[in-house]
Amino acid sequence: MRVAIVGGTGDFGLALARRLADAGVEVVVGSRDAERAAEKAREAGAAAGAVNEDAVRDVDLAVLATKADAALATAEALAGALGATPLLSVASELRFAAGGVFPGDDARSLAERTQALVAGPVVAGLHSLAAASLARGPADGDALVCGDDAGAKALALELAGAVVAGRALDAGPLASARALEGMTAVIVNLNKRYRGHAGVRVTGLP
Amino acid sequence: MRVAIVGGTGDFGLALARRLADAGVEVVVGSRDAERAAEKAREAGAAAGAVNEDAVRDVDLAVLATKADAALATAEALAGALGATPLLSVASELRFAAGGVFPGDDARSLAERTQALVAGPVVAGLHSLAAASLARGPADGDALVCGDDAGAKALALELAGAVVAGRALDAGPLASARALEGMTAVIVNLNKRYRGHAGVRVTGLP
Repeated sequence: MRVAIVGGTGDFGLALARRLADAGVEVVVGSRDAERAAEKAREAGAAAGAVNEDAVRDVDLAVLATKADAALATAEALAGALGATPLLSVASELRFAAGGVFPGDDARSLAERTQALVAGPVVAGLHSLAAASLARGPADGDALVCGDDAGAKALALELAGAVVAGRALDAGPLASARALEGMTAVIVNLNKRYRGHAGVRVTGLP
Repeated sequence: MRVAIVGGTGDFGLALARRLADAGVEVVVGSRDAERAAEKAREAGAAAGAVNEDAVRDVDLAVLATKADAALATAEALAGALGATPLLSVASELRFAAGGVFPGDDARSLAERTQALVAGPVVAGLHSLAAASLARGPADGDALVCGDDAGAKALALELAGAVVAGRALDAGPLASARALEGMTAVIVNLNKRYRGHAGVRVTGLP
């Protein structure tokens, strides 16, 4: 499997690149800056680094790992380069306020809104994995992945399985991303309240 | 603690009544039908059964355990009887379709919409507990509870702690109910896909 990580020089993207490279996946680290992409690719043990537009060409799956507030604009800008390539959305909108951490106000998930901007299938997942946990080794807990395209979801599940200590689980249609993205705010609230690094494990499955 | 369970004769409400009664909580089973409430209260080992309007008087916390499609109308009808009594919302909207199980289409959670209808504080939680698991004993996994009122949330956490095998965890403000309710659809999708009875456990907290 050849995977591009758009925004691969950020905390989460770089940790993901490192884990995928460790697992033998051919990773291309994408960035807006070619030199920075190449430098971070070396740091992560990835196959290559390139500007995002070049990184997403000829890969089996691209991961949209920019910050949440740049996700939609980045997907739109890369739509041509992506073509029909499956895109994995991992971002969640968060709003920090006095009463805690709040989810975004849009009824649709970032992943569903991303799907409206690109031609290939969008899948979503990995939202509950903390960059800090992923940077140290396979992330605690399970990875939940959702999507409407079976082939793209199978690729994302394969990727997810390579980077978590637990299981990669199929959480249903792309609309499940509303809950998976929303759980990021829950996790940040739990981390603040209990001073931990929360992840999610699903119990009760065979 | 004295707790009323509105819609306490349904699968989830009755299982919750049974677990709370086992834990020594004084439970009033509420129903639209007084006779049925009394019969189910005996079955659950609860203190009493009554029509919903009477069940919610003089309790510390009321649980809104009707089916999701009756939750808002029931809350509105009981607003007078509830007065300032805290209300725990446990329901989630689900839509079953060919592509899987989908969340509701409203950006706001049922719990937030319930808060607009009653004078007392609304808290939300227990969404990931399966009635079947709860009917057999303390439910697998952790119980996540959220709300904007600290006192009401403390009561709900106390209640939740009495009915799960895992921990009762404070998941932040009432807006977290969007994710907690949404996770019910995720759980049903997981149950269908893996033929299990999924629950959620939070990892990584001290």
